[in-house]
Amino acid sequence: MKKIILVTLALIATAGISSAQLTKPTPATTNLDGKQYPMVNPDLSATFQVVAPNAKTVELDLGKLYPMTKNADGVWEVTCDPQVPGFHYYFIHIDGVKVADPSSKLFYGCGMMSSGIEIPEAGVDYYLEKEVPHGEIRMQRYYSDLTKSWRICYVYVPAEYESNPSKHYPVLYLFHGGGENETSWPIQGKVDNIMDNLIAAGECKPMLVVMDRGEATLADQPAFQPRRAGGMIMDFTPLDRVVTEEIVPMIDTRYRTLPDRMHRAITGLSMGGFQSWAIGLNHKDKFAYIGGFSGSGLAPTEERYPATLNDEVELLYVGTGTEEPGQMYTGVRDFHLFLEKTGVNHVYFESQGTAHEWLTWRRALKDFAPRLFVK
Amino acid sequence: MKKIILVTLALIATAGISSAQLTKPTPATTNLDGKQYPMVNPDLSATFQVVAPNAKTVELDLGKLYPMTKNADGVWEVTCDPQVPGFHYYFIHIDGVKVADPSSKLFYGCGMMSSGIEIPEAGVDYYLEKEVPHGEIRMQRYYSDLTKSWRICYVYVPAEYESNPSKHYPVLYLFHGGGENETSWPIQGKVDNIMDNLIAAGECKPMLVVMDRGEATLADQPAFQPRRAGGMIMDFTPLDRVVTEEIVPMIDTRYRTLPDRMHRAITGLSMGGFQSWAIGLNHKDKFAYIGGFSGSGLAPTEERYPATLNDEVELLYVGTGTEEPGQMYTGVRDFHLFLEKTGVNHVYFESQGTAHEWLTWRRALKDFAPRLFVK
Repeated sequence: MKKIILVTLALIATAGISSAQLTKPTPATTNLDGKQYPMVNPDLSATFQVVAPNAKTVELDLGKLYPMTKNADGVWEVTCDPQVPGFHYYFIHIDGVKVADPSSKLFYGCGMMSSGIEIPEAGVDYYLEKEVPHGEIRMQRYYSDLTKSWRICYVYVPAEYESNPSKHYPVLYLFHGGGENETSWPIQGKVDNIMDNLIAAGECKPMLVVMDRGEATLADQPAFQPRRAGGMIMDFTPLDRVVTEEIVPMIDTRYRTLPDRMHRAITGLSMGGFQSWAIGLNHKDKFAYIGGFSGSGLAPTEERYPATLNDEVELLYVGTGTEEPGQMYTGVRDFHLFLEKTGVNHVYFESQGTAHEWLTWRRALKDFAPRLFVK
Repeated sequence: MKKIILVTLALIATAGISSAQLTKPTPATTNLDGKQYPMVNPDLSATFQVVAPNAKTVELDLGKLYPMTKNADGVWEVTCDPQVPGFHYYFIHIDGVKVADPSSKLFYGCGMMSSGIEIPEAGVDYYLEKEVPHGEIRMQRYYSDLTKSWRICYVYVPAEYESNPSKHYPVLYLFHGGGENETSWPIQGKVDNIMDNLIAAGECKPMLVVMDRGEATLADQPAFQPRRAGGMIMDFTPLDRVVTEEIVPMIDTRYRTLPDRMHRAITGLSMGGFQSWAIGLNHKDKFAYIGGFSGSGLAPTEERYPATLNDEVELLYVGTGTEEPGQMYTGVRDFHLFLEKTGVNHVYFESQGTAHEWLTWRRALKDFAPRLFVK
């Protein structure tokens, strides 16, 4: 396995032709068709409007709360601080009720359908649609006997899959964060564009990407699962069983896969990163490539992460964003330092200038995928 | 082609094992996971709650407006009238601002992300997940040169498709209504469950179902398109060109289709019905099966609908719901009577007791699909 590698944004900057810098206020690409607001400004601040003549107070909730002010027509408006590029969830509070902005497309996040605003990243197009062969994302319903419920698994299939009816493919299992679901990578993550562009450029192996819900309640267990704020589930055992006993076999049955550990990878973001480290290390016989984006191995000990891992797995990957708040950053960085200290080879990736948000995770995926299935 | 056939709900009642009648108030299946409200009552009324301690007025908007009343805890509540079974869009008005209910899953309808409530239909399961082979819905990105934009086409692929790599399939082009989009049939329409169940029961031919956006603005034309309320587009020419010059060829290239008129059908609901009649009759060389659910041929004349159609198409299909309001019902019924008078063979389907809503369209699809590609 590779020695420790430090990756910086330098590696990321080779992302193809530029998307233009904004020169004037522009409706966000995440708005509903025809909606002018929110409007992204050239300094990457954004201006929001809500029509609410009879409301007493209207606030913008971008993590930080911004009081909005009402004009004579009953239109409330505010301009937020300049934002880091990428995708941000937000809400509107109308007289204290937290709701989605009616002029935004909505995205499942924060445990509900949430408004989102895409702040464009000048000079970068690796997650945009380009004139390259396009794969598909397949919505695959299946019955989970462990949970006694129907689930939907989203599967990215590369463009070449249908034209190579005898070829078998490796599989990346990719998990969302707390309060998100299986639609998060396909929609706000733009996983198909990222993979289509990498594969078309010859930068990564054609592979399947399986995105399922990072949540499972076993039918024979109490529904209660310990949670943190943000909907993060702390008991990974039920998901571990559903992934290894149901999802992996279902994918290996329904798709032309290479059904062995050397052709399976697992990673995820935030909660999905914790889950991937836990499930991956519990099943090194099933996954040779293990990672986490803004989510690492919990409570690391030398027992759990011995230097012998170097001979047992092909890749351990630790990703984070330099602007992630407090423990979110230090927790992941300290995990990296712990692995370094104990001599466990791994790749440590820092996304410069991005927070605990989708741009960190799009960049991490773009950096992670090319490292997979190279043996 | 078949002679005029009158179909009633009798044909529909053979829909497999019953889903149980509600015996107590039950959270709607359209709620976010873990949300208790809205709650469907045994009489098919539903009780809605919104936490809004500081709001002055909160109303439920189910088409009809219901004022909600606040209890001591600042929770607003109302119980609506008993509803017809099926899927209903709804909104909450908070101090006059129309927003989606934060406790509902959301659905693209009414030109925005909308709350929805599924009122269960006792004794019917044709649109529910069952233990049958499941197809997939594929999200297919493609570039439209006519509109100079990227579009996403949703394609239902039957379960057997992958295991028959040399078999070619007929295609149904299925359009949504005004204010909806390409996600409406896959999500609120439950198209994959309906097709999976029909195909598994041997009641219809395995086929692809293509669901694209019933909206197109040609790059070389002004963006303005005449609209009615509800987002209905009245100029079908741009869509006609995108469907026949771009979508059909794209599908015939990317999928194993039977690329001829005898193996193509086109229908849609409401606005999508008007569009399907217009596009289908403009291109009888491409579509031998043409229909509309709650949307018919506009301004019918004997010139446009001559009896010679009987020799030119395999099926004309007119569907409606008996509870559709005023002109929505009479417009479609009068079109049926016009075709009858002029001797144009067609199938006329009435969904008993359902309105201009999804249950009418799920039933119509269940009745329509088995009539396709039978020659």
